[in-house]
Amino acid sequence: MPADSTADSTVEGPDRLDRSDRSDRLDRLDRLDRETVDHRFKGLPPDAEGLTVGELAAQRRNLFTGGFTTPVLALAAASLEHNLALLETYAERHGLAFAPHGKTSMSPQLFARQLERGAWGITAAVPHQLRVYRAHGIRSVFLANELVDPVALRWLAAELERDPDFRFVCYVDSVRGVELMDEALRGTARPVDVVVELGAGEDARTGARSEADCTAVAEAVAATTTLRLVGVAGYEGEVPDATPERVRDWLHRLVSLAVSFDKDGRFADTDEIVVSAGGSAWFDTVAEVFAELPALSRPVLKLLRSGAYVSHDDGQYRRLTPFNRVPEEGALEPAFRLWAQVVSRPTGHQAFVNAGKRDAAHDLHLPEAQVVRDARDGSVRPAAGIAVTRLSDQHAWLTTDAQADLEVGDWVGMGLSHPCTSFDKWQLIPVVEPDGSVTDFIRTFF
Amino acid sequence: MPADSTADSTVEGPDRLDRSDRSDRLDRLDRLDRETVDHRFKGLPPDAEGLTVGELAAQRRNLFTGGFTTPVLALAAASLEHNLALLETYAERHGLAFAPHGKTSMSPQLFARQLERGAWGITAAVPHQLRVYRAHGIRSVFLANELVDPVALRWLAAELERDPDFRFVCYVDSVRGVELMDEALRGTARPVDVVVELGAGEDARTGARSEADCTAVAEAVAATTTLRLVGVAGYEGEVPDATPERVRDWLHRLVSLAVSFDKDGRFADTDEIVVSAGGSAWFDTVAEVFAELPALSRPVLKLLRSGAYVSHDDGQYRRLTPFNRVPEEGALEPAFRLWAQVVSRPTGHQAFVNAGKRDAAHDLHLPEAQVVRDARDGSVRPAAGIAVTRLSDQHAWLTTDAQADLEVGDWVGMGLSHPCTSFDKWQLIPVVEPDGSVTDFIRTFF
Repeated sequence: MPADSTADSTVEGPDRLDRSDRSDRLDRLDRLDRETVDHRFKGLPPDAEGLTVGELAAQRRNLFTGGFTTPVLALAAASLEHNLALLETYAERHGLAFAPHGKTSMSPQLFARQLERGAWGITAAVPHQLRVYRAHGIRSVFLANELVDPVALRWLAAELERDPDFRFVCYVDSVRGVELMDEALRGTARPVDVVVELGAGEDARTGARSEADCTAVAEAVAATTTLRLVGVAGYEGEVPDATPERVRDWLHRLVSLAVSFDKDGRFADTDEIVVSAGGSAWFDTVAEVFAELPALSRPVLKLLRSGAYVSHDDGQYRRLTPFNRVPEEGALEPAFRLWAQVVSRPTGHQAFVNAGKRDAAHDLHLPEAQVVRDARDGSVRPAAGIAVTRLSDQHAWLTTDAQADLEVGDWVGMGLSHPCTSFDKWQLIPVVEPDGSVTDFIRTFF
Repeated sequence: MPADSTADSTVEGPDRLDRSDRSDRLDRLDRLDRETVDHRFKGLPPDAEGLTVGELAAQRRNLFTGGFTTPVLALAAASLEHNLALLETYAERHGLAFAPHGKTSMSPQLFARQLERGAWGITAAVPHQLRVYRAHGIRSVFLANELVDPVALRWLAAELERDPDFRFVCYVDSVRGVELMDEALRGTARPVDVVVELGAGEDARTGARSEADCTAVAEAVAATTTLRLVGVAGYEGEVPDATPERVRDWLHRLVSLAVSFDKDGRFADTDEIVVSAGGSAWFDTVAEVFAELPALSRPVLKLLRSGAYVSHDDGQYRRLTPFNRVPEEGALEPAFRLWAQVVSRPTGHQAFVNAGKRDAAHDLHLPEAQVVRDARDGSVRPAAGIAVTRLSDQHAWLTTDAQADLEVGDWVGMGLSHPCTSFDKWQLIPVVEPDGSVTDFIRTFF
């Protein structure tokens, strides 16, 4: 807590904790601002070497004329802010708690902004991510995955013991998994909160396949003292051959499972029941079905976990976003633009830029050429007649037709598809204002 | 130079430079050993937090029982050493200089071992890589790409001025590119050495398409004072529909271009002519054709640039390696194994491990399930009846048949396809002895 704040000394209970929590997180973010700009970070100005990240941000250099080198990925400041605000209000309006999936960006600065905007906590997928979160002061984590590694479980137990305000929930989907957890956690101080994962269909991803399987898992949990059953969860993004109807049907199964577990007294040990679902493709359906959840024996934390919304994209999520179905609720903005330079133009129908698989998501779609920044005068024009047709490790292959105006030296601005595999190729990402000035940097930990 | 070495004071010329060069590089590697083990690095033991990397290596912990968490990528120490030695002797035997492509590993420690084994220098693809190399004391760099970014060129010129022993060569493939380089380099002290890149075919990647185009580029270089033409180069790995005959034909074109440029006096300003080709799929053909190169007016540096050999793989390069055609010259060994844990086994025909696109190369082939380490007793068995059929961001989908013996908690050891997209998912990679002890860590800079 700030030493000069006398008002704070009268604050008690959760509110006081929240403030100290926040101040702790801000301290840790300050450390990121004090990191040195050097060869570890792609695309940064060579003449900024030795500055701190904070000092470089304070210089407000222009992305195009301030010494940045290609390839360089940029995040649009306004789009980030817009997306953060939009999902905050969306979750509020629909009575959902929000634990955005942090695997998307793995950026403590974005986590902080998500928490400032009322997020309950941050979702994780694997223990390594949990370690990054804890190192940056994240107090509430939903691990949307099974966790059966004894080493990670013992580390988790030590974190729970060290910090009474650390709230943690993870999936269980098998009796064997419960046994492994119990074995690793014997003798630890606080039980680990778990939710039973209901699989999204017969050939879907993780999750117990039937209600009977879920019940067997819940019973195994109840037989331990190391675990506490607090709810049910799953991932509707893996419903096979998904349609709104199929997703709705599965969500109804999930909600019914919560009701039936509650009726059977399976949540007797918890003060709050967790019901969680919701990636970035179906949160409208999640909101709709979760709204129908009847009153249970305890307050219910309806937890949405969308992650990709933070940057959105120009491919997969442009196509899949629920806002396409509910445009009256808003629209996300793609925040990424990857800039690369034309290094070769060997024929009238080919060009090559210096960004490749190392720089751009390439698992779902190729990047989309959007604009060209002219090397001669800095003007920007649409990338008419230019298409990315292939990626090498360090090159993108561009096909150009007769209308394409493209020369060696020009920069090509590209949209990307799939935020999760875009963030993970960059450890420090410039955040750019509409006038091109870089006012911030997003640090990632993959 | 070491202060206590009196013998060194009598050494003069290149040998002396080599020793100081080596000592400088070793100093910089020591710095990597002094990095702190923390949340930045996936898979490392949580209880090693706060140790230095060197201290953790000195503990020789076991990969399976020493507190490492899944997913974790491991490099086999013996296979690395074998591969490093094999390409050293291969290049020697065929009279080739060697500048292994550093983009594969981006690991200063592996670069040091490549240089210890006689490599001429290290190959790079983009300016960021060059910065990493220079930060770790690499003195000779072949940039197998065009470089037309004025910011990067001015940084390069400053490096060349600062360090008279820095040797640098890059591609040029267009008159426009030469003009951009010349413009950026005006007034700098040392000219930048360039080789004309001959494209590998009509619809291949970068490189001037015809001998006439190459000549025009060479003439543009000759008209500058900022650039010096030192040779010709290209990448046979992009010969369209490659067969040994087509690759041989293109290499003959490359060699003929060197001969004709030399005949025309285009290498008058250099003491040594550079002729370079050779990725990891055709170095046998490169060796064969480069052996036929007639005497030129100056000594010729025949520069091979293979990079993927260092780890080799269990997919793309297992299939493409030239050693399949010349088994009498040796065989590379796949050095990577990705270990992940079964977190879910929802049906008899499905299992899920906690490694996905974030952890495994997935651009060319899926990982290959090779072995299972039993969670109960630590025994290791072949991954019979187990296949990886899909990757999510943080999961691999496994299909299992009736013979598969696989339980939640078991570790699955997987082979990977494509070294370049395997290294780049890990910033610190344990190097493992046959008995499982981790004796070293490979730091990467992507």
